[in-house]
This record gives sequence, C-alpha cells and structure tokens, in this order.
Amino acid sequence: MSHNSFGHLFRVTTWGESHGPAIGCVVDGCPPRLALTEADIQPFLDRRRPGSSRFVTQRQEPDQVRILSGTFEGLTTGTPISLLIENQDQRSKDYGEIKDRFRPGHADLAYELKYGIRDYRGGGRSSARETAMRVAAGAVARRVLEGVTIRGALVQMGDDRIDRAAWDWAAVEENEFWCPDRAAAARWEQRLLEARKSGSSLGAVIEVVAEGVPPGLGAPIYGKLDADIAAALMGINAVKGVEIGEGFAAAALTGEANADEMRMGPDGRVIFGDNHAGGVLGGISTGQPIIARFAVKPTSSILTPRRSVDRFGQEVEVLTRGRHDPCVGIRAVPVGEAMLALVLADHLLRHRAQNPDAPGEARLPRN
Amino acid sequence: MSHNSFGHLFRVTTWGESHGPAIGCVVDGCPPRLALTEADIQPFLDRRRPGSSRFVTQRQEPDQVRILSGTFEGLTTGTPISLLIENQDQRSKDYGEIKDRFRPGHADLAYELKYGIRDYRGGGRSSARETAMRVAAGAVARRVLEGVTIRGALVQMGDDRIDRAAWDWAAVEENEFWCPDRAAAARWEQRLLEARKSGSSLGAVIEVVAEGVPPGLGAPIYGKLDADIAAALMGINAVKGVEIGEGFAAAALTGEANADEMRMGPDGRVIFGDNHAGGVLGGISTGQPIIARFAVKPTSSILTPRRSVDRFGQEVEVLTRGRHDPCVGIRAVPVGEAMLALVLADHLLRHRAQNPDAPGEARLPRN
Amino acid sequence: MSHNSFGHLFRVTTWGESHGPAIGCVVDGCPPRLALTEADIQPFLDRRRPGSSRFVTQRQEPDQVRILSGTFEGLTTGTPISLLIENQDQRSKDYGEIKDRFRPGHADLAYELKYGIRDYRGGGRSSARETAMRVAAGAVARRVLEGVTIRGALVQMGDDRIDRAAWDWAAVEENEFWCPDRAAAARWEQRLLEARKSGSSLGAVIEVVAEGVPPGLGAPIYGKLDADIAAALMGINAVKGVEIGEGFAAAALTGEANADEMRMGPDGRVIFGDNHAGGVLGGISTGQPIIARFAVKPTSSILTPRRSVDRFGQEVEVLTRGRHDPCVGIRAVPVGEAMLALVLADHLLRHRAQNPDAPGEARLPRN
Amino acid sequence: MSHNSFGHLFRVTTWGESHGPAIGCVVDGCPPRLALTEADIQPFLDRRRPGSSRFVTQRQEPDQVRILSGTFEGLTTGTPISLLIENQDQRSKDYGEIKDRFRPGHADLAYELKYGIRDYRGGGRSSARETAMRVAAGAVARRVLEGVTIRGALVQMGDDRIDRAAWDWAAVEENEFWCPDRAAAARWEQRLLEARKSGSSLGAVIEVVAEGVPPGLGAPIYGKLDADIAAALMGINAVKGVEIGEGFAAAALTGEANADEMRMGPDGRVIFGDNHAGGVLGGISTGQPIIARFAVKPTSSILTPRRSVDRFGQEVEVLTRGRHDPCVGIRAVPVGEAMLALVLADHLLRHRAQNPDAPGEARLPRN
Repeated sequence: MSHNSFGHLFRVTTWGESHGPAIGCVVDGCPPRLALTEADIQPFLDRRRPGSSRFVTQRQEPDQVRILSGTFEGLTTGTPISLLIENQDQRSKDYGEIKDRFRPGHADLAYELKYGIRDYRGGGRSSARETAMRVAAGAVARRVLEGVTIRGALVQMGDDRIDRAAWDWAAVEENEFWCPDRAAAARWEQRLLEARKSGSSLGAVIEVVAEGVPPGLGAPIYGKLDADIAAALMGINAVKGVEIGEGFAAAALTGEANADEMRMGPDGRVIFGDNHAGGVLGGISTGQPIIARFAVKPTSSILTPRRSVDRFGQEVEVLTRGRHDPCVGIRAVPVGEAMLALVLADHLLRHRAQNPDAPGEARLPRN
Repeated sequence: MSHNSFGHLFRVTTWGESHGPAIGCVVDGCPPRLALTEADIQPFLDRRRPGSSRFVTQRQEPDQVRILSGTFEGLTTGTPISLLIENQDQRSKDYGEIKDRFRPGHADLAYELKYGIRDYRGGGRSSARETAMRVAAGAVARRVLEGVTIRGALVQMGDDRIDRAAWDWAAVEENEFWCPDRAAAARWEQRLLEARKSGSSLGAVIEVVAEGVPPGLGAPIYGKLDADIAAALMGINAVKGVEIGEGFAAAALTGEANADEMRMGPDGRVIFGDNHAGGVLGGISTGQPIIARFAVKPTSSILTPRRSVDRFGQEVEVLTRGRHDPCVGIRAVPVGEAMLALVLADHLLRHRAQNPDAPGEARLPRN
Repeated sequence: MSHNSFGHLFRVTTWGESHGPAIGCVVDGCPPRLALTEADIQPFLDRRRPGSSRFVTQRQEPDQVRILSGTFEGLTTGTPISLLIENQDQRSKDYGEIKDRFRPGHADLAYELKYGIRDYRGGGRSSARETAMRVAAGAVARRVLEGVTIRGALVQMGDDRIDRAAWDWAAVEENEFWCPDRAAAARWEQRLLEARKSGSSLGAVIEVVAEGVPPGLGAPIYGKLDADIAAALMGINAVKGVEIGEGFAAAALTGEANADEMRMGPDGRVIFGDNHAGGVLGGISTGQPIIARFAVKPTSSILTPRRSVDRFGQEVEVLTRGRHDPCVGIRAVPVGEAMLALVLADHLLRHRAQNPDAPGEARLPRN
Repeated sequence: MSHNSFGHLFRVTTWGESHGPAIGCVVDGCPPRLALTEADIQPFLDRRRPGSSRFVTQRQEPDQVRILSGTFEGLTTGTPISLLIENQDQRSKDYGEIKDRFRPGHADLAYELKYGIRDYRGGGRSSARETAMRVAAGAVARRVLEGVTIRGALVQMGDDRIDRAAWDWAAVEENEFWCPDRAAAARWEQRLLEARKSGSSLGAVIEVVAEGVPPGLGAPIYGKLDADIAAALMGINAVKGVEIGEGFAAAALTGEANADEMRMGPDGRVIFGDNHAGGVLGGISTGQPIIARFAVKPTSSILTPRRSVDRFGQEVEVLTRGRHDPCVGIRAVPVGEAMLALVLADHLLRHRAQNPDAPGEARLPRN
C-alpha cells in the first residue's frame, strides 16, 4: 500500500503539512556506499524553491534540507535516509476565509468528504509544498542512476507552444520558465505578467527526458515502466494528462508512420530511426531516451470570485488572496524530473533483482 | 511489488501466454457473500472477444471462462477467485519469420534485452490476449461497485473525432466501434475497411466514464485516484497517453475558465457547475462522474515492410502477416472499462479500511 | 498486501479449496533462463502426497502438477509461472455433520465469524491441501537457490524427542516420518499406530536447515530474515511455535555461553565456533547454516467427541470421522522445507536489488 | 516491500541510528478524527526508556517525542503522522575498539558483509534504540484499538520461570522486571545484580496478551494473524523464538487434550473451555484473548573476552565495555506490547476493507 509512499524497492515516504513545523521524507532501499551529503540535494531544491522569482509564490522558504540518518562519513549505508526541511514562513495570517469554505479546484471539499477533518492552513497536506520532498528524494535517486541524464522543460504555457525546432537545452537554465525556446520565453514573460496583474492564472505542459537509461527497465504486465511514469506524473499536484513519446498524437498516425525502424550501430547497439515510442516498448525500456509530457491545469487560486459552498451547506463566494504561483506549471519542472528519477531508480533495482546480470546493454547478439 | 498483479486490496494477478495452454487470473481480496457465477463474467468477455466482427482479429477463441475457486453455491467466500480460459486457436503456423526478428513497435526487442529469452509465438506474454483476464477480473470488480455505472466509448479513430454534441450512449452498443456518434461510426467503417485492405492500421482515443462513484475514494499523496487510473490505462497494450477530465486542454484554460463552481443541491449534496476536474480533486473523488481518456497507437502489425534487426545483429525487413486488429483501439474499450472498475473497487476497499463509516456521501453539513 | 500471496520479489499467490475442481498457484518474479519442467517439481509433491503411507490421510490424490505458463522450451522466461493440480478424490460424502457445526481446533468458527460464509467441504480453503502448492512453488524456488541445500526432519513426535547425537540425514529418507534418528523412528511407529487405532492424534516438532546460504540475506528492520522465516513457518497449518538457532533455550543461557566465537578460515571466510544464532545476526544471514524449528499441534480431527456449537447457536457434540493424518507434523516436513526455500529465494532477489555486487561471500577483508 | 516499514494499512516506517542526530518514524494510514497528542505517546516511551532503573542501560535519554505532522487541533487527520525523538546522550567516546572488530552475537559482521559499510557507533541502525519508535507507533495503534487491552509480562529470566498460579497483573507495574509473580521478581533481582556485577547477562521470555480483540482479524493463507504476530515479535532485537497459545508444548499434547471445547454464552457469544489456541484458529482471531510469547537471548555485550575477527581478516579478542542492559528482555516487554498493537491495528483495517460490516461480534446465529 502506498498512500504516502512512492516506489517499491527504492521507496520514498513523505510527510508534512504546509503550515506544520516541518516536512520530510524517508528514502528506503538506497544502495550502500554512494556519496551523499546535503550538498548533493540542495541545488535541486533551490530550483523548486518558493520566492525565487517574480513568477512563483512569494512565500519565503530557504528550504534547507538536513540528512538525519542513513549516511555515515558522507556515504549511504543502505539504511533509511531521513530528510527534513523546517517550515519557516508559516505566515500567521487569518485563515478565516478558507477555514470553512471549499475553494473550487482545490482539494478542500474532497478532504472534508473523505476524512471529515482537514488542516486548512495553506492547503495542509495537499499543498504543493509537499513536492519539495519529491525533489529532495529525486536528488538521491539521481545518485543511483549513474550515467543517466534527466532534464525537463516547459513546452507550452497557456495555449502558446514552443517551436520544437528552436529547442536548446542551454536556454532552459537562462529563463525563469525552464523554456528551451528563447523566443517563446520572451512571449511568456509578457503573458504571465498580465495574468499575475489580473489575478488570473495559466496552465502549462512540461516535457521530461531521460537519456542513458539502460534497456530492460520495466516489466509486464502491471509493472510497466510507462504505466509507472504515468502514475508518477499524474500524481503531481494539478496534473491532468500524461503522454509517453508520441502520446495523443499517435492516435492520428498510421501504423507505417508510427513505426520506429531499427538498424545496427557499429558497436552492436540497435539504432532507432525515430522515437515515437518514447523509449518504451511493451512496458520495457529499449535504450532510447525516455520522453514523457504532462499537462498542468491553471492555478486554482485566483482573484476572481467563484461560487462555492461551505462546511455548513451554505452557498458562498470564494476568491483567493495570498501568495500563489500564477502558473504552477513552472515549478512543476523540477518536480517532474524528480518523479522520473524516482521511477527509474526503482525500476533499476527491480530489474537487477530478477536479472542478476542486469543492467544489460542493447548489444546484439546477446549471449 | 506488482509486476503481474494489479491493485492492493482488490488485487488481480494474471498469467499466461498467447499460445500456451491457457490464460488465467487470481482475484484476491474480494468481499464475501457477493453473487458471482460465470454468467456474470462471460458477457464482458464476449464484448472483447476476438473473431467477433470484421474489424478485429480473426483468431477464433470462444473465451469461455471457468471459476475454479473462491465461490460456494454461487456466492463469493472471501478467498481467492481463480479464473481460467483455455486457449483454443493456437494456430500451428510457422513462426520462423518472427522467431529471431524484432517487429518494430512490438515488445520483441525489449523482452529479448530484458530477459534474454522470449516466447515469440503470438507475442507470448505481451500479446493483447492477456487483456481478456483484465476484462474478466473487471467483471468481478463490478460486483463490488454496487450503484456505480462504468461505460466506455471510442471518441476518435485516426484523426477523426466524434461530435460530442451527438453523443448517445445507446449508439455505443449499435455499431462495431463502441462509437457514441452514429455519423462518426459510419465514416469510421469506411475508413477502417480501407486500412484493412491496404494492410495499414489506425490509432484511436477511448473515453471511460464512471457514474455513481462515492466521494472520498483515493488518497494523498501517492495513492491518488487519478494517478492510479493513469497507471491502469497507460498499462493497457499500445496506450501512449492518458487524460483525466479536461486533460491536456486544461493547459490552455485560464484559472477562471477551469474552475468547477459549486452550489448546494436540495438534498444536501454538492452540485458542480461543470466537471473540468473529471471527478477528482487532490487525488480524491468528489462524487462527480470520473472521466478519463486514453490514446491507443495504431496497430504495429502492418503489411508494409519495415527495417529492423534480428537476434544475431543482422539487419532485416519485417512485415507482419497473420490475424491482427486494424485498430486495436476498438477492443481496448471493454479493457479500459475493466481497468477503471479495478481501480475503483480497490480504492473503495482502501477507503473503507481507513474510514470505518465510509463510503460517505457528498452531503453537507457532515457531522 | 498478501492475504494469499507470499514473498515480495519471488512472489507466490495460491488459490483453491479442498473440494473444488483444482488448486493452483502463480509464481511471479522468477529469474529467466532457469531450467524448469514438471519433472523438477513432481518429486517434491510426491513427498507430501496424501495416501503415500499408513501414517497420512488415505485420500487418494496423484497430485500431478501442470505448468500452464512462464516457461518456453524448458526454460523460465521471467513471466509468471502458473501451476495447477486437479483435485481427484473429492469423495462425494455427506458433509451434513460439519456443514453447520464448528469443529474444535479447526478454522470453521473463525471463517464463519470473519466471512459469514464458508466452503465446509473438507475444510475448504483452510485445508492442508493448500500446502501442496507451497511445495510446488518451493521446488521452483530451489532452482533460484543454486548451491543452497535445504532439508528438513522430524525431531520430536508427541513428547518423544530424537537423540541429536544419533542424527543421520541418510536416515531421514528411510522411514515414514522423515526422522534422522533410526531408534526414535522405530519408537514413533509403534506410538503412531496406537494413536491411529484409538482415533487420537499427536503433535510434532520439525527442524529445517539451509546450508550454503550466502551472507547478507535479510534486512533491517522489518525485513529481517529470521522474522520472515518465523512468519513463513507459523503460517503453516497447525503450527504454534517457531525457533531460530538456539530458540527458547537461549533464554536460559548466559551471554558467554551463547556467544558464537569467530576465527578466520584459510580462505578468508569467517569460521564460527558454534551456531547458537542459527545463521542469522541482526536479521541478516552470516553464511552459517540457517536453522529453524517449528511445533505442530496434534491433528484436531479426532474420534473422541468434543463439545461445540453450531451456526444456529446450539450446543452440539462433534467427532470427526473420515480420512485424516494422525500426526499432521509428518507431512509438514516438506512444507517447512518449501517455505524456507521461498523465504530465501525472495531475500536473494531483494538483496541483489539493493546490492548490485551481491551475493557477496563471507571473505575478509572485503574488496 | 518492507525493509524498514511494518504493516500494510496501518503502516509504520522507522529511521535513525543510535548515534545520529535523531530517530523517528512515519505512521501512515491512521484513521482520522482520533484524539492524539504527545501525551498519549510519552507514557509508553517512559516505560521503555534507558536510564530508568538499575537494570537497564545507563545511557541518559529523555526520549521526548514530538509530533511533526498528521494531527490538527489534537485530532488525527488521516495524513501521515511523523514522530521524532532527538538523541541526546551520544557519548563522545572512543569507538576505536569496535570500529573494525565484529562483536560476537551482534549484527556487526552481518552488516559488513551485506553493505560493505556500517555506522559502528553504538550499533548504528541495529541498536535497540530503534525500538523506541516501535513503542511510539504502538501508542498510536492503541488509539485505533478501542476496547482492546494489550499487556505484557516477563515470565522467565534465565532459567527461572514464574509460578503461573501466582500471576497478578497488578504486580507487573510494581517491580523493575514487569514480573507478574512477586516471589519470582524478588529472586530475579538478586540474580540480575549478580550478573551485572560479573559482567555477564541473562536471557528472558516475555508473554504478551491482547484482550477484547474482535473475531475475524487475520486472513488465510499468507496474511494469518499468528504468522504476522510471529514476524512482529521475531523481528525484535535478540528474539530467537515465538509461540502462540500452547506453543511448543502443543507438540506433546494429544488431540483430545489440545481441543478448546465451545459452548454458548448467555448473550450469543461463544465461550471456550480453554485457550490452547491462543485466540487464533486458521490464522483468524476467534474473540478469545490473543496470547503470544517470545524468547530473548542474553545480551551479547559482556565483559568476558570472546574470540572474534576484524575487518582486515585478523583474529582478535572482543569484550564490550560501556552501557548495556544485563537482560535486554526487560525492556523488550513494552516493545512486544507495541508490536502486538501494530499487528492488531493493521489487521483491523485490513478486515474492515474486505468486510464492510466488520468488525463483527462472536454472536451466533449471525445476522
């Protein structure tokens, strides 16, 4: 069971509420003798951090992570790694407005109906603050994935898509949107300033890519790599759609157009003519880059009043003041990378368990 | 761990290869004292059965299911339910063509690289034949979901989408495509005949809907209902994308447009003005209909030769003769329904465990 | 969750009732390319088979196992292995006597209170017949455990213990009790004939030993090898106690007497002066033989009437006619071996997953 | 997978080393709206606390627990409960003696062979300090088990057993050994003072009892209540044997003597004449008290030198100075109670999930 745990062999359990004293996670199953200190984790947290630009929530959180267990003299020991971040900026504001009211698009009503109780302060457990621990755990997962490069980018904001021909990974680190197309980034800046000004919000699409993934990760039938990636990405706050490779566009292709033809490379590795599959066939990695995309809905916290109800069954109007991301999709980029890293690290261990000579290489003939 | 098992408390383990003596599954965790005989399962299998129309594979399989355990005098006993279907039409053809060659778009290469061995006959374990057991297990799940209606429909074939204004559930049972739009069904018939004739294939998009789902199913953070639905649907053979509610279109909406406003119904239930969310907020059902869509790629088995490689590292050409579905998306409709049923049954049990007075109702005020 | 599944990575799911059409299991997670046919499994089933001697139930079951999936041309493929045994001798007797009555010491009342329904024929799911599938699965596990020898023996029948100084593994295969002490076997024969004659029954203690187990199997804190062995053995029908190494006798030793001193062997392996620990320290194997014992209560089915109640709340007398083992402990020997094999195979895979260079050897210094 | 997690639906993940900055656990799956503050947990920790008497380690740890998440205004919210205890008395001693040496009977060698690295300070992860978190989690489990009373007692120290006829639960809280027999407690005091003086150590047997457990908890075949209790108790540090009900003594009884006869009570509940079964039949609770015992080996840390080896393959002598329990069995009493509580809370939730009208009562006729 995994209500607050993710993964099977490389397994992460997170805890904590937006306005509690701290948030944290336990990373269990990490292989021993990997170099790991706070300095390996902090840079990834800094990429996701609130207060880091004009376009994300102004809540001030240094998000300094501490390792409380599972390492010794800078190396992992194979025992559970406990990570903790203290909450700093639990603004002592009056929550009267949302204490009893259910904000449309938020988890408020759902939690109330499920549990009959909820920590309403800042969204409690359903706050995007929890994703900090995913990013922290993802940084540990990257240590396991030696030779694998995992990167993400925003490829659509609102209805404005990037020009894929202009894709430059270097551009991703240069703008505040993780946008690989410099022209699009310039347009988005304008657009997002307008949205923020009007108290509105925008959705987004993120693409995450993993290169250097060994073939053989994933498993039939209910441990498919793409199915686990789908769950991992759909489970990020505000995500409403997930694609692998060609994704929904595959529906409009013919079988001939969709085929990824193969030939032999000089070193015995299979070379694919294309990657409609997104690196996964039959639920198992082929050695091609893993490519996935996910759609993030526009932030539900907006300044325009919306009709809703309260805990007492009364009809009310709700508008959300306070510190919010006008496009939560932006901060979802490092989170999406982290989730992909977690899935891959878990499947690397799962593959190893059943296949003692794994990870194999895509060389033919095998023997 | 769940390589061949699905679900946690309502848990299905499937086994079997396309050309082995039989396929089967074990359904564990089913509540006791539910009425269940083969007659409750067979109708759903008949909807998915090969050989049932011009537009699906001509392999002849009666797919008669037998219950081997877990019921007594027509009632479930709470012990594992073993279901078995004997394979009949394992055509004793010559598999020489694909024995050593990797068909593009199929799992052949991936299995070879993962396991170093594969049952190549009919695709072995990766054959869509396995989905018969999902449908059978889904029929059992429906017994658990009293009061819930789960239906599916094909909403796009190739690049041709239905007119949603013309949606009629009654139409779904009238055509060979599970298409809710009669005009679209007529167009698709023409199109698919052409594809079959030319040895090509088409992709599709399927929509599945569950009505009557009680609020409170699903759980933060890594047991989210929508994340589990995403994995369930992405894990169906040939699926490349999954959406909940508004899906990818949500990225292009503003926060105001995407808000599902709420008001009180006369009976204390919350009424939503719209359902962009697809029935899930914060990973938890709200009582609205659950709506999901998934994209199926065009069948990879086509008559046009494609370049590939073989086990010995030689470059070859592959074309796939034999019995195949020109649009595997069609038979994915009952499979998608079944997967949704499995997720919901599992989450109903998970919810009950933690919330003794569950399933609740969407009535306010609670107390 | 594991109500009818055992193990995590090497995972067995069993199904079937005593008087249903068949019993079976699915073995998931088995490594690929291991030689496996029915002939590898059948000998172990024959050791447990009913009707095989005067001292076990006279039910006639050939217990012929069939492999329905997961192998190809005599090798495992890495996909789930489905095993099935048809029930033959479901004697069409009148079950009126136990249909509504709860036999003391049996699961009848417990199932009724839990499920509100039970298949009373032959004990249904709670019948020891289910253990045939454990033995079958255990035979598959042995394929994974190359180099490991797993054996069991009966070391106590009723209150009569063997003389450990007389232990001879060769004797175990010579008598009908798997007794390693020939003199004890002779005494037990007499004793058991008397018990059978008087319709009484006897308990027993079984010892199982695994030699050649690599060090490093097991894991802190809740995946301890000895804890998993304890669950595995306690879960066998009629078992009431489990010991590792010195077991309960350890309570009466001093720390000095209980210490297993170590010295270096010529090959860099650690040699232990004794094995009070039973091969496990801190939940992890040390390379010494794993030694466990379990106590089986006397068969609850006896000819002497006992007071009980029925489904309607009436007080009744129950005596159990029919075919029963006067000492179920005898047939528990191959079952105990199988459970130990299942635990070890699972832990071997679990260890491999986290420790890519595992299984290690007990050589010092490492690397 | 559960290397550092315990339970399925009521699930505890612990982390931390003996000499790290803190130890902690995450309790996931707890039902919402239960009253819970630190004051509900602390008393149980105080019973296990080091430094609390002459007969336990003199390490000074206040063991003040903090709740970091999962409660709101004194009630559980259904989200994960994070508990944390800071380590205070990590005595900055010289660990040179055990840094490279393997103490006989300890986990030192096993960790080295498994992981190739270990935090040797105070035993690291294998320290009994981890059991503090079991006790803390067990206190939360007790909140779930309304109406159930769980108690434990030391029934044997060294080879000296209590007189069961003298059992008085009131006595348990009066002496430093949790001994229910006042005369035995007096003898043990003398004995333990001697052992401490000579740097020796003693083993023990603990009995834990749960009263008020509803019938129906536990499940066939691999989710048996007694099997899970066996794993829970065997997984406590230094435990070598576990018994349910009659335990090993059952082997020496006849079927007649071992039968727990039943009759009807005035209220429709079944009354048992005896409890050889220890409250469990067929792996399922019957409503009788659950009774289990476990054997704890003598503390391995002793002052008498023992032969051993070091990391470099050299033969050495080891004796363990420092702060140790002369009989670790004493502090295992609250730990055993906690583990029993964890198993029962987990099974209560598991039972509820499958049986919506559960927990039932042992009334006949049902319905």
